Amino acid sequence: MCLIMEAADDHVDGGVLAAPSNFSMVEDGIYRSGFPKPENFGFLTTLNLRSIIYLCPEPYTEENLKFLEANNIKLFQFGIEGKTDPPTLMPKDTVLDALKVLVDVRNHPILIHCKAGKHRTGCLVGCLRKVQSWCLSSVLEEYQKNAGLKWRQRDLNFIEAFDTLSLRQCLLSIMYRYHGYGFKRKRLLHEEENVQTPKLQAAKV
Amino acid sequence: MCLIMEAADDHVDGGVLAAPSNFSMVEDGIYRSGFPKPENFGFLTTLNLRSIIYLCPEPYTEENLKFLEANNIKLFQFGIEGKTDPPTLMPKDTVLDALKVLVDVRNHPILIHCKAGKHRTGCLVGCLRKVQSWCLSSVLEEYQKNAGLKWRQRDLNFIEAFDTLSLRQCLLSIMYRYHGYGFKRKRLLHEEENVQTPKLQAAKV
Repeated sequence: MCLIMEAADDHVDGGVLAAPSNFSMVEDGIYRSGFPKPENFGFLTTLNLRSIIYLCPEPYTEENLKFLEANNIKLFQFGIEGKTDPPTLMPKDTVLDALKVLVDVRNHPILIHCKAGKHRTGCLVGCLRKVQSWCLSSVLEEYQKNAGLKWRQRDLNFIEAFDTLSLRQCLLSIMYRYHGYGFKRKRLLHEEENVQTPKLQAAKV
Repeated sequence: MCLIMEAADDHVDGGVLAAPSNFSMVEDGIYRSGFPKPENFGFLTTLNLRSIIYLCPEPYTEENLKFLEANNIKLFQFGIEGKTDPPTLMPKDTVLDALKVLVDVRNHPILIHCKAGKHRTGCLVGCLRKVQSWCLSSVLEEYQKNAGLKWRQRDLNFIEAFDTLSLRQCLLSIMYRYHGYGFKRKRLLHEEENVQTPKLQAAKV
């Protein structure tokens, strides 16, 4: 076995990596999942996470806190209620605050999770996609794929109604300030800025 | 509106980006989806694709070929039958050939697609995950999330039976040769190689 396999296996329990439930990659440096269990720590180590956005009001578990500390991962907790009886409304301002943390590349690589990685996580990712100019049907398809049979109409309504207009301008200015931001088209723009001087000068800010 | 928004909008039809059906990010530089339609070309442009792996035997459409030519995207076609009556077996050797193209970073960013992005694409991504040391339950969960209600037991069986042992060593050696390979843990190793000289010398190749 060559070196690269040996060293990779240092992070692996029993030779395999167990992803957290409902794990997906969202963008370069942005991941989503359900609540990670200790058996997922080996997998998470390979992501080299800098931060976690945790979207539940319940305190983080002791073992997960220890994992964060050992790996120097910063926790951003936004306590959004997940009760369904009676159903709680998704709090706009809290989602907005989480979104600001999410798009700040200084926090990347970052993992978003709640309990199942379906509703609260799905709403936050849905709002991010709107900031990225995804059309609504693409946003909702992604939400539904990750929520499966548990998808909720009120989440779709929340994502659709979420206003990103003023936010997009603010966020993209922030992104633009830092190197290495993961959204492809913004990164491309960033790389091309030196050859776009005339356009830069003509920009309305 | 600031520059970054104006320039980003050059690629956008009607101000929004329509992702191909069943679109997801797999890894840095690797995407998957259903068959892209012309209304998805704006979105695809933002991914800055270098290649496409197309897993159906039917010829690529004229308009999609023109899009590839205009954007200098290389097409790798692997004609895997998608018939269900009678069901065709997933051809091991073809999947292996597609996998070799997929993991070669010289082809990244790369999009894998078939027709629905569920079965043929799901099998190829499933085999990739095995190469990445994902445990089988994580691999199958990802397959099922992307196939939805259309998931097929024979695809799960194919992924489970697919042998990656000798392939992994071969592929990881290839990956190791090129800079910028997207799998986090291998990239980390690559970045760390200068401080691991004693371990490097002791490596069994």
